Amino acid sequence: MKISSINNAKVVYWAKLKMKKYRDIEHLFIVENEHLVEEAIKKGIVIEIITTDKYESSYPTYEVTPEIMKRISSLIAPPKVMAVCKHIVPSDISGNVLLLDRIQDPGNLGTIIRSAVAFGFKTIIVSNDTVDYYNDKVIRSSEGMLFNINIIRSNLLDMIELLRSKEYSILGTDVREGYDLRNLKKEKLAIIIGNEGQGMNIDLQHVCDGFINIPMSKNCESLNAAVAASIIMYEVFHE
Amino acid sequence: MKISSINNAKVVYWAKLKMKKYRDIEHLFIVENEHLVEEAIKKGIVIEIITTDKYESSYPTYEVTPEIMKRISSLIAPPKVMAVCKHIVPSDISGNVLLLDRIQDPGNLGTIIRSAVAFGFKTIIVSNDTVDYYNDKVIRSSEGMLFNINIIRSNLLDMIELLRSKEYSILGTDVREGYDLRNLKKEKLAIIIGNEGQGMNIDLQHVCDGFINIPMSKNCESLNAAVAASIIMYEVFHE
Repeated sequence: MKISSINNAKVVYWAKLKMKKYRDIEHLFIVENEHLVEEAIKKGIVIEIITTDKYESSYPTYEVTPEIMKRISSLIAPPKVMAVCKHIVPSDISGNVLLLDRIQDPGNLGTIIRSAVAFGFKTIIVSNDTVDYYNDKVIRSSEGMLFNINIIRSNLLDMIELLRSKEYSILGTDVREGYDLRNLKKEKLAIIIGNEGQGMNIDLQHVCDGFINIPMSKNCESLNAAVAASIIMYEVFHE
Repeated sequence: MKISSINNAKVVYWAKLKMKKYRDIEHLFIVENEHLVEEAIKKGIVIEIITTDKYESSYPTYEVTPEIMKRISSLIAPPKVMAVCKHIVPSDISGNVLLLDRIQDPGNLGTIIRSAVAFGFKTIIVSNDTVDYYNDKVIRSSEGMLFNINIIRSNLLDMIELLRSKEYSILGTDVREGYDLRNLKKEKLAIIIGNEGQGMNIDLQHVCDGFINIPMSKNCESLNAAVAASIIMYEVFHE
């Protein structure tokens, strides 16, 4: 199907998906660029394709003008192909778990997702006030790894209770003292990463079984949240 | 001194410093927010202060309107105080060295600088085509750590020759094979981190003494550049 009017109802509808509000209402999101479209197809969540070119697939495909693509895209340089995707249905908790408390920066969330897949974590639980993981910057900085891990949005305290019933160890992070992360066990770990500016919520600190400390120079107060999360996950993964 | 006109020559001059071109010509840059202004004062590079409030200091201080602040600021929510600073004069190479080959994302560069200070690296050498480290996003994501490390902008091949004459080991990174980073020596290390999309330049690969590999799951092709750099520096720092 071809669409040439920028005011076409479909175009207006797609463009709205740039906003979290509409992604939540419609349970949809958009991925941009061929690589991410392919990943989304593999994941089985694509409902339609939008392209300025030809694109071979078994999905309904809309050929649009570059002007329309620009209207829908979140990128400065709009891609040749996008896919409209259904929200991914979370599955049950499995493997090692990362809990994210109010991560605000989309780049940080995407980077954490990418590292979590790299280091074999199976589940990420994000607090309700963490940035939307269907945000285009999150998807981009995750390099599509969003499709390779189970992400659950929930109240963290409830989930910690559930994790505890499943015999997980609940570990927070502390910039000044705590367990050396070289001595972490390798399984049934649930690690909490706190907000970029304020760290972990006090209520969460109270329910931790212990805290992990990353040794660092006194010249630096703290690490970037995505870096801290990645170093801990790396240590869990490394033999 | 008070400035109330948005067209005042000083205001126009300061606003231009948002652009790399003018920062390079004037050898100046701007830091925003009280914390960074304090860090810049400690470093001795401040030449004047701009504020919408009062600000006690021994530097020439300009009181401006919120409208003017908004014109000069790179932030959505302009700060109450900024400092115009001189470029930092690089010092000689010392300690462990990180070489950055065409890092493009300001957030990545800032995060790498922050981690380098955290993990005791003394020198960062950035390629001429790496993003400007006086970019406001770099300064912000470095959390002011830019002031706590020696940063040199140069041709990397020239610097590698110099490092080799000083008996440094030149190590690249490789996503699939290489030394386990647990076995790295702790001194005289020069580690190269490549561009976010393309990795290390081929010319640089040829002059490496070896490559470091970060073990990771086959489900993920690579790590974010700032994460990879941070994990390596963490391993060098950790006993």
